[in-house]
Amino acid sequence: MAPQNISHYDIVIVGAGPVGLMLSTLLARWGYKIKHIDNRPEPTPTGRADGIQPRSLDLLRNMGLKPAIMAHEPARVYEVAFWDPPKGGDGIERTGTWASCPSFIDARYPFTTLLHQGLIERVFISDLAKNNVEIQRPWTIKDFTSDESQNPEYPVEVKLEHVDGSAQETVRAKYLFGGEGARSFIRQKLGIQVRHKDPISYVWGVMDGVVKTDFPDIKMKCTIHSRDGSIMVIPREDNMVRLYIQIASSTDPDFNPRKTASEADVQAYAKKILQPYSIEWERVEWYSVYPIGQGISDNYTLDHRVFLGGDACHTHSPKAGQGMNTAFLDAQNLAWKINLVERGFAHRSLLQTYEFERKDVAETLLSFDNKYAKLFSQKPPPANAVAAANESAPVTEESHGDNQFIQVFKESCEFTSGYGVKYQPSVITWSPQHPVQSPVVQPEGNKLRPGRLMINADVTRVVDANVVHLEQEIPMNGSFRIFVFAGKSDLTKGALSDLEQGLRKRSSFYATYERQDVKTVSHHEKHNPHSHFFTFCVIFANKRPQVEISRDVPGLLAQYRDHVYADDLWSRRVPDARASAHAKMGFDQDHGGVVVVRPDGYIGFVTSLVEGTATVDALNAYFGSFCTKKIGHDSAQL
Amino acid sequence: MAPQNISHYDIVIVGAGPVGLMLSTLLARWGYKIKHIDNRPEPTPTGRADGIQPRSLDLLRNMGLKPAIMAHEPARVYEVAFWDPPKGGDGIERTGTWASCPSFIDARYPFTTLLHQGLIERVFISDLAKNNVEIQRPWTIKDFTSDESQNPEYPVEVKLEHVDGSAQETVRAKYLFGGEGARSFIRQKLGIQVRHKDPISYVWGVMDGVVKTDFPDIKMKCTIHSRDGSIMVIPREDNMVRLYIQIASSTDPDFNPRKTASEADVQAYAKKILQPYSIEWERVEWYSVYPIGQGISDNYTLDHRVFLGGDACHTHSPKAGQGMNTAFLDAQNLAWKINLVERGFAHRSLLQTYEFERKDVAETLLSFDNKYAKLFSQKPPPANAVAAANESAPVTEESHGDNQFIQVFKESCEFTSGYGVKYQPSVITWSPQHPVQSPVVQPEGNKLRPGRLMINADVTRVVDANVVHLEQEIPMNGSFRIFVFAGKSDLTKGALSDLEQGLRKRSSFYATYERQDVKTVSHHEKHNPHSHFFTFCVIFANKRPQVEISRDVPGLLAQYRDHVYADDLWSRRVPDARASAHAKMGFDQDHGGVVVVRPDGYIGFVTSLVEGTATVDALNAYFGSFCTKKIGHDSAQL
Repeated sequence: MAPQNISHYDIVIVGAGPVGLMLSTLLARWGYKIKHIDNRPEPTPTGRADGIQPRSLDLLRNMGLKPAIMAHEPARVYEVAFWDPPKGGDGIERTGTWASCPSFIDARYPFTTLLHQGLIERVFISDLAKNNVEIQRPWTIKDFTSDESQNPEYPVEVKLEHVDGSAQETVRAKYLFGGEGARSFIRQKLGIQVRHKDPISYVWGVMDGVVKTDFPDIKMKCTIHSRDGSIMVIPREDNMVRLYIQIASSTDPDFNPRKTASEADVQAYAKKILQPYSIEWERVEWYSVYPIGQGISDNYTLDHRVFLGGDACHTHSPKAGQGMNTAFLDAQNLAWKINLVERGFAHRSLLQTYEFERKDVAETLLSFDNKYAKLFSQKPPPANAVAAANESAPVTEESHGDNQFIQVFKESCEFTSGYGVKYQPSVITWSPQHPVQSPVVQPEGNKLRPGRLMINADVTRVVDANVVHLEQEIPMNGSFRIFVFAGKSDLTKGALSDLEQGLRKRSSFYATYERQDVKTVSHHEKHNPHSHFFTFCVIFANKRPQVEISRDVPGLLAQYRDHVYADDLWSRRVPDARASAHAKMGFDQDHGGVVVVRPDGYIGFVTSLVEGTATVDALNAYFGSFCTKKIGHDSAQL
Repeated sequence: MAPQNISHYDIVIVGAGPVGLMLSTLLARWGYKIKHIDNRPEPTPTGRADGIQPRSLDLLRNMGLKPAIMAHEPARVYEVAFWDPPKGGDGIERTGTWASCPSFIDARYPFTTLLHQGLIERVFISDLAKNNVEIQRPWTIKDFTSDESQNPEYPVEVKLEHVDGSAQETVRAKYLFGGEGARSFIRQKLGIQVRHKDPISYVWGVMDGVVKTDFPDIKMKCTIHSRDGSIMVIPREDNMVRLYIQIASSTDPDFNPRKTASEADVQAYAKKILQPYSIEWERVEWYSVYPIGQGISDNYTLDHRVFLGGDACHTHSPKAGQGMNTAFLDAQNLAWKINLVERGFAHRSLLQTYEFERKDVAETLLSFDNKYAKLFSQKPPPANAVAAANESAPVTEESHGDNQFIQVFKESCEFTSGYGVKYQPSVITWSPQHPVQSPVVQPEGNKLRPGRLMINADVTRVVDANVVHLEQEIPMNGSFRIFVFAGKSDLTKGALSDLEQGLRKRSSFYATYERQDVKTVSHHEKHNPHSHFFTFCVIFANKRPQVEISRDVPGLLAQYRDHVYADDLWSRRVPDARASAHAKMGFDQDHGGVVVVRPDGYIGFVTSLVEGTATVDALNAYFGSFCTKKIGHDSAQL
């Protein structure tokens, strides 16, 4: 085939599981041309991953996909119950329960959402269809090459084939993404090794079905240890329940990784473990036995053109329901970086932060999975320790200080909820080692930590007096989110005006990346009236009726009129604060501060809001450290 | 046509606006055979009603229709702004704002939802399709007769015709419902007169469109009085805004009810009123001029076979956005009563309470509409009064005592939110004049008022630890909802056991109306395991982990295992309560009480929960006062 006849894509995505679909959905929304294949004839019909962690639900909401997920009426797990043999008796008894996402985590949705992976996949597939992307099935990847020296724009050539070998296609692309799962062809072809963190491996049996039982916690997540073995119970939509049963462990004296068990074996096993409770299956939807080892790939990419993500990069036990959630975040992390590079905003080196950030999270996941597995294998803690962790009132740091188990539990909950993800310092994630140094950066008292999520807060939108979730106000559209906490409007008038003047300067990060069509943008455009790369929010520590946009918000910022807020709602987490959102962020309630949140919701940079040019200088320097154009040369140097 | 060839229906519904669709949707879900016609070729294409009040959103959620409504991203009105001429100046200025549904109303959704009527109609039409009901369009009613003596089961004969006269159909039905709007053919044919409460009538112009304006409150509900006239502004989905303009009033010296105005006239008028702000129309979606008078029909039915509802019974100004909401409640009220009569549970006389209850609400609506119109015509209150009403913290009764305006405002907000509806005493709505008299009825201190809505409360569901809205836990399925607030489980053990024993007696209201298929009901049935007419909820004033259903809930009540709750969540409205739901209801936190909520969410009856037979005797007597079978003859008489 002559090269000129080859179809060209921005990206070829292999695998339509959670990681591939998230990547495809985001890039399709942002206008990229996508070839997306999967070797299965249809979406996951039954079984596989089913747990959406609290933070992932935030992300899905931010993408507008939460209603479609919730329309399936998924099960919601708020608590975990532990069952053990009674002292010196037969059978099992409940020895404790604790919150799945305890109140010390400031989560919008403090529960895990359980829904069949196929239904979740279909939500993404429907969204893709709106952007005219269809998954090509059942197709597989046969080969690929990547060589920028031959074709700097479309360096990747990919050979695709129908699984029955009846058709082939060769395409060129800017990027290739392998979201093919643990046995990734792309990873193997790149010669990237998988390291096993923990030498222990397991064989698991998993069964989804509808049961009849008198076991009282069948609608809770349970870990059951009996003298006859252990089971994990996870409720599902449509009265279903999933049981995980550990069939073999490499620590067993007679371990065989190919050990298996029939459906009837597992049911008999479960019946024994659950005694004195009875259990009968009305229907089995899915049953599978599979060996699982902890593994992490040495690299997520070699050339920053061919990338891996999801199970292709990291495998671990299903116990904590992290697989799909980690996959979502891999994809989201890569998507916005590809977007900023391809749109000419960021240096290509930004793509290096994908492996840097996500591999570190995977390492943490595997360490955690190790610890979690041990935690589950151990006897549960005494009831009084569980009770302390389970208090519904906010818990202070101190009250946990003296119990090591609860500390471990707390760390685990933060991690499993998704709120514990922390990206390491880099050019996009400020730290004291960052090139930008200024007295205004990371002002004292603020609780926002670069690399962690923006803190949740309720505020009142000024234009329509709607009560809104501030962290959700800007959709996942690829823009940086710049939250200007403006304190009391009469005290910050000068600082806000100076900031706006600074943004207006031709060399500011903002003016430099102004939209080319800025003069013809619709006045209904809420998020990107001036630039595709930034959305501004201004939050005053005033009551809503006291805020007058035309008077209090300087011209350029006033263009974001739908993003002006009053911080005038009470919060139980800061009950004495006058301006609860300012207080939650740890900003001075009179003078505020500025937060730059990356397109994925993680904090990049925090500065004070001060009179003069220091605030805008700091912002210019931050963006200047990774964007393609020279920034801030006509303003004072830091 | 020979009678045996005539199709028979449970009900013929004429008109597929909000009232007809609500009635049809409920009855279709409950298995009734429905003929539903509408004389329009398609659902409302543009304009007409668009305001869903806070309580109506509760109702739609209870029916599972809220997600489909919210998927259209309706506008949400939290506040109302008042604009007036400045003292001695030209133009207009904002003189105050206040909450649309202030915090003294304990609403789940303290906002009005604005969405085009056609989209709302389509949500119902989709639901009807699931039950195989299709609106027959464009068809109209030509004639009907109703005669129980001729045909006691299907007394109504209805002649229907295609609007172009090309086809006719005669059908028989148990009921006929006229939801045809203000010019109801059915009402006219019955000879029911419409009384005009207020001799004043108006001509209104209404325009829906997308505008470009610098008027700052264009996304708020506004009442603008200028020296050039008045306008009401109502935001809508898709950046639309609705303007209501009063074109003529019968109090004008030259009043002409046929006065009209062109689209351009109204735009010019609006431009003048909004000065110094500018407004331009990018698109007009709908424009209409129509005369409106306050009217109420003398009767809603003559024979309790042919019923009227919605605008066929009451017309009023569009100012408070009540039309669709009142229509919903008319239909809902009639639906559950028809259902209980047709299923053989209630005496046919229950149907008399439809007109009794709903006409009284319509009278209240018209009185309110009158007052509201005057309120809008008057100068708005001084800014300090508005500020007091607008406090976001809960407001005590006392703090309003000294300001007559705020009192009126408070009453209005309660009514317009839908939370103010109060049904007058009758056989289903207990009062001191009710035949059931017992010391346990309406126990001292309780805040539940028969005829008003069940109070909202958050509780924890025991089986899965989910945080739920108690008042939403039982769907609108036609069953009475019996909430047993069981106080502290160790203190009420005897009372709960005695209640259960009483329910088990063959002559109890409960056993008398047991399902015939009770022995084969699926164990997954959550709401009606024993009876189609009742669902029980048991709420303990204990922490969730302290509740053990197998130990604490007696056998028959334990069948409702998905309806056992722990009252262990903190509420800002009763911050010091140990059991906030008990406290909100005004029940003793140790000993609880029992509430019977009608299928529509309104309270029917309240008793103490005591040891012995008094509680079940009172319940037997309450249901016995309107059900078809003899109840409680083998238990002690009251």
